[in-house]
Amino acid sequence: MRVLDTALLQVLEAYRAAVYAKDVDAFVALYDENVRVFDMWGIWSHSGIGAWRAVAAGWFDSLGSERVLVEFGDAQVNVAQDLAVVHVFVVYRAVSAKGANLRSMTNRMTLALKQAAGAWKIVHEHTSAPVDHETAKVILSKG
Amino acid sequence: MRVLDTALLQVLEAYRAAVYAKDVDAFVALYDENVRVFDMWGIWSHSGIGAWRAVAAGWFDSLGSERVLVEFGDAQVNVAQDLAVVHVFVVYRAVSAKGANLRSMTNRMTLALKQAAGAWKIVHEHTSAPVDHETAKVILSKG
Repeated sequence: MRVLDTALLQVLEAYRAAVYAKDVDAFVALYDENVRVFDMWGIWSHSGIGAWRAVAAGWFDSLGSERVLVEFGDAQVNVAQDLAVVHVFVVYRAVSAKGANLRSMTNRMTLALKQAAGAWKIVHEHTSAPVDHETAKVILSKG
Repeated sequence: MRVLDTALLQVLEAYRAAVYAKDVDAFVALYDENVRVFDMWGIWSHSGIGAWRAVAAGWFDSLGSERVLVEFGDAQVNVAQDLAVVHVFVVYRAVSAKGANLRSMTNRMTLALKQAAGAWKIVHEHTSAPVDHETAKVILSKG
């Protein structure tokens, strides 16, 4: 574990900017073409950038005039040569076109990244939130 | 991505053996003392081997005379120097003392491992299953 280095920090910043802008191309550019994503919602895994692009496009389309503010917290990172792992808490906050807070949820996110030609690309992403054992329902607030 | 190398494969084998034996010491020995775990159930994160040992002990205790067979599938791995990332599907199958199948569930698992003194230790683990968007309930069968 160590302080998040600048190039990796830029990936998180770029993720936040792409989501806020609802920019599918900028979002997809963060990922390797062979990425495998374990996303929190509905599907066991998404393999390849085409599948993941469709998820991002659907997400951004579903927002209408809303925007999503992303906030990262308590990141931990391991790096060796061209491989990095980041695990971090993420708050997704939906705001109206006028900037009113609508709702928010927290996720846990693990990213594996490979560096090629000076740029880090996400080769694996895993997002989730804990599940209540009694109800089998997901817990979306860190409280 | 590449074929899982032998030393990493041994970690998965040791995980399976420790769970089957309900051996808390053998289980905990797979992890780094500063591990941070994003576990599927109830709690946002477990930090440090003491917290994670308590979870393992509680899990194994809760099984009574049952045992859990672990099966890994579709592992992908990245390795650089002393850092590795493994993402894989895991089936946990509970069997009675007489070997009858009782129930099973599938998880997605991401492991980050560091190699020290020739041994790989898990520094981060993230387990989950996808959540149904309509009901907010976790999906435990890969179907």
